[in-house]
Amino acid sequence: MKILVINAGSSSLKYQLIDMDNEQMLAKGNCEKIGLEMGIFGHKTADGREKKIEIRMANHTEAFEQVKNALLDSEVGVIKDLSEVAAIGHRIVQGGALFSESVLVDEKVIEGIESLIPLAPLHNSAHVQGIRACMNVFGKEVPEVVVFDTAFHSTMPQKAYMFAVPYEYYEKYKIRRYGFHGTSHRYVSHRVAELMGKDIKDLKLITCHIGNGSSITAIKNGKVIDTSMGLTPLDGFMMGTRTGTLDPSVVTFIAEKENLTPAQLSDLFNKKSGLLGISGISSDDRDICKAEDEGDERAHLAHEMLVYQIQKFIGSYVAALNGVDAIVFTAGLGENQDTLRERICTNMEYLGIKFDHEANKGVRGKEKKISAPDSKVAVYIVPTNEELVIARDTKAIVEKL
Amino acid sequence: MKILVINAGSSSLKYQLIDMDNEQMLAKGNCEKIGLEMGIFGHKTADGREKKIEIRMANHTEAFEQVKNALLDSEVGVIKDLSEVAAIGHRIVQGGALFSESVLVDEKVIEGIESLIPLAPLHNSAHVQGIRACMNVFGKEVPEVVVFDTAFHSTMPQKAYMFAVPYEYYEKYKIRRYGFHGTSHRYVSHRVAELMGKDIKDLKLITCHIGNGSSITAIKNGKVIDTSMGLTPLDGFMMGTRTGTLDPSVVTFIAEKENLTPAQLSDLFNKKSGLLGISGISSDDRDICKAEDEGDERAHLAHEMLVYQIQKFIGSYVAALNGVDAIVFTAGLGENQDTLRERICTNMEYLGIKFDHEANKGVRGKEKKISAPDSKVAVYIVPTNEELVIARDTKAIVEKL
Repeated sequence: MKILVINAGSSSLKYQLIDMDNEQMLAKGNCEKIGLEMGIFGHKTADGREKKIEIRMANHTEAFEQVKNALLDSEVGVIKDLSEVAAIGHRIVQGGALFSESVLVDEKVIEGIESLIPLAPLHNSAHVQGIRACMNVFGKEVPEVVVFDTAFHSTMPQKAYMFAVPYEYYEKYKIRRYGFHGTSHRYVSHRVAELMGKDIKDLKLITCHIGNGSSITAIKNGKVIDTSMGLTPLDGFMMGTRTGTLDPSVVTFIAEKENLTPAQLSDLFNKKSGLLGISGISSDDRDICKAEDEGDERAHLAHEMLVYQIQKFIGSYVAALNGVDAIVFTAGLGENQDTLRERICTNMEYLGIKFDHEANKGVRGKEKKISAPDSKVAVYIVPTNEELVIARDTKAIVEKL
Repeated sequence: MKILVINAGSSSLKYQLIDMDNEQMLAKGNCEKIGLEMGIFGHKTADGREKKIEIRMANHTEAFEQVKNALLDSEVGVIKDLSEVAAIGHRIVQGGALFSESVLVDEKVIEGIESLIPLAPLHNSAHVQGIRACMNVFGKEVPEVVVFDTAFHSTMPQKAYMFAVPYEYYEKYKIRRYGFHGTSHRYVSHRVAELMGKDIKDLKLITCHIGNGSSITAIKNGKVIDTSMGLTPLDGFMMGTRTGTLDPSVVTFIAEKENLTPAQLSDLFNKKSGLLGISGISSDDRDICKAEDEGDERAHLAHEMLVYQIQKFIGSYVAALNGVDAIVFTAGLGENQDTLRERICTNMEYLGIKFDHEANKGVRGKEKKISAPDSKVAVYIVPTNEELVIARDTKAIVEKL
């Protein structure tokens, strides 16, 4: 069974075709600058065949036409007939309190996703466009499944998901912590349990998804009890361009002094802050590493802050869990940045962590235990695979039809 | 040597006269509603004599006239001659990055406090009024000393005091974490070291000042390395009416939906949130306790959130300190609310805390160890005494003149 996994943004569309018989990716690609004068379409197969063209894609339907053509193409294609695509799985950012698990798409589900647009204006409206465009191109008879970034976090207790603003805003606007990257946290938490040879139901885990966007999650007996992202993916600790959590008076102070609207503030905190805002150099950690190596003080500060904020989040989740069995690093920086992992795990002896510096060194994107055998808390690298989780959920739902 | 300790607000003025020969309070009182049509003046002596009158006090100078008269009064007075007041110590909320310790007041110091008014508009301008009014009433020859709420926190490393907003706002507006309640954290941290019979330079301490306003501080070898309040006393965890730290998108979301100005948002987050906002009942914890006992769900939620947020802050500071020797509770709730202390210290076994439930029960405002003798981390109640610290600092500076 082959499943097409879709991540539709407002002007982009990423896809992966996965053969679920062996869980291997067959081809993947990206449509960029949808709706603009000129777009970019890129496609790669697992065996190394490639296509990259400039082409206008007026909307998501035209983008999916490109995807379809590439999948069927005589040179870069991986299927002979469109009917080989058994089902389509979509990543959806915001499932709100409506969706606590993946579901088959029908009109009611689409309405549900649309009803959550106020909570994720850019993302959820793009997702709905993606779903409808899929129906246009692949036909309504191909089952579509939606997998929510928020769903894995739906087990959080109320004390963890409420913000201490007047209760009426929770009732009126559903303002609360939802959490994101749920699919990634789900994947790596289950995978680390396998690697440890334990039942996830017996484990206290802290999963650190550290990339350009980052979140940390506390998982007790397989269920999320807290996560760092909040109403939106802005919350938590500092990221490439995002602030993370703030003293609210910092927000109102800047708003007043700079005379900024809420939309301008949102832009400032989402796009010009974090590692970029502190370093003044880049949101890309590789650039900051280079500058830090060359003695740049603000690059050093940006890293010091990032490491420290992550250490504090881990500490707070150890408190929430009343202990921890394993800490997992995943995503761009978590999988690939050995010095970051090392700095985070330094000065954590209070937890009984014995970090294995040698095991950690130079490891990029590989599953590996990076704590000593006698470490009280295990530390692992587990590369994430959100597309595979989406494909697995899609397969499970489609097989029951 | 008798020292007058002053806490001047914009429309109020609290004072205490302390005999530093035995560190005993002689009299204390409060001027309320300064500048309004009709004010209230209250005065009490340590031996129980009292005065309470309604009287208009047009400004801080007129308020100090009341204080002077009461101190000298034949019935409720405690001194015979004004010259017995050897010095005056003022509490100042915001010392910014300018003041890292208490100093003798001169014109340059007043200018410094005034220069920080943008960071604490209501407080610092009131403090300057208080200082000048004291000169008018007690004479310029009486030395005045200023003790800053922020000073004890001035040892924080940059990684702890920076917010991940663009660096230019730190340069332009001095936006950073300052921390408050420093005088209280200083007092209880030194006091707990004495109670433990240890040198504070050998201790890792977490001090929890939990009152209507609340903050938690991590103190390593006698120096603050982190504290929960930030640019203003709004940051940290939820308080009587304050939110504590927030997902910044919660701020911009509410601003947009409710069409609120920065000043209105500030009012909302400072005065209508926290325990009051969640419970919908009161900012006073006694009211919330009563409602919770009667089965009110939102009162229960407010307490659950408060306890959980404090537990997480403690956890994050244990991480910052890489361990902890003692946790201290102080201020209104910290000193008096035994069930709150118990709930916070429950499910903290991961730290090796053995809470002594019996020792904790019913204790109000008394120094006491409330952990078991074999607890890996000691837990103490230490009633705070900010006035005494202000008087001690004042005495130390004045004695060197």
